[in-house]
Amino acid sequence: MQQQVSVITLGSADLSRSRRFYGEGFGWAPVFENEEIAFYQMNGFVLGCFLTPSLEADMNRLSVPAPGAYAFAHNVARQEEVAPLMERLVAAGGTMLRPADAPVHGGFRGYVADPDGHAWEVAWNPAWAIDDEGHVTFGV
Amino acid sequence: MQQQVSVITLGSADLSRSRRFYGEGFGWAPVFENEEIAFYQMNGFVLGCFLTPSLEADMNRLSVPAPGAYAFAHNVARQEEVAPLMERLVAAGGTMLRPADAPVHGGFRGYVADPDGHAWEVAWNPAWAIDDEGHVTFGV
Repeated sequence: MQQQVSVITLGSADLSRSRRFYGEGFGWAPVFENEEIAFYQMNGFVLGCFLTPSLEADMNRLSVPAPGAYAFAHNVARQEEVAPLMERLVAAGGTMLRPADAPVHGGFRGYVADPDGHAWEVAWNPAWAIDDEGHVTFGV
Repeated sequence: MQQQVSVITLGSADLSRSRRFYGEGFGWAPVFENEEIAFYQMNGFVLGCFLTPSLEADMNRLSVPAPGAYAFAHNVARQEEVAPLMERLVAAGGTMLRPADAPVHGGFRGYVADPDGHAWEVAWNPAWAIDDEGHVTFGV
């Protein structure tokens, strides 16, 4: 069995709002979009922003609370990139959860929630390699 | 800006329970673990199971509900692999959300929640390529 995730699907109440956050905040462009979903080709998998009622219907789990106990991280190559990216995410409709600081395990990170409340960590972790295609490898 | 996610971090109330689900269900082995977190090297990023109170403290967002409006997908190469994998996930402590069937957009899929309620879609989507390293490419 491949240790593989194919898709992260995030519920969205308003796709134009989500596209602004991921487009103007992270600078990401969708590879496909319609009135119900936007897909982004990522580093070895696909990220989808899907209207929450459609996602709920698809996974047969209605009235899910948002957000939940999870977070996604986007790592950057240099510590100095963390705070400016977090500022762009807030300017693009995000909400600051934790301004960037240094955790006890090393590195530097903060958290911003997207417009639907999904938590994004922006982190600099010099022990984890990121190759030119964006593939990230665990390290200590 | 790379279109890149570095980490998916899932809150876990019981790491041994999570390790059983991801180990016996998906067949995945951690690359690192301690009493607070288990990391899995995935297809270009890292999956972490992190004790929920620790995750809440790290992201400065307390008492998050679980689950939320999101899902992760694991795609398989053949339609016939979907149902047996879902059965293994349930046997390893998961909860069936939606037995596998064919959505209108094509393919074949069902959903199982992990022991903390995080939703996993198991899908066969012949339009999306999966290479030998597990990297998944969007297609129509």
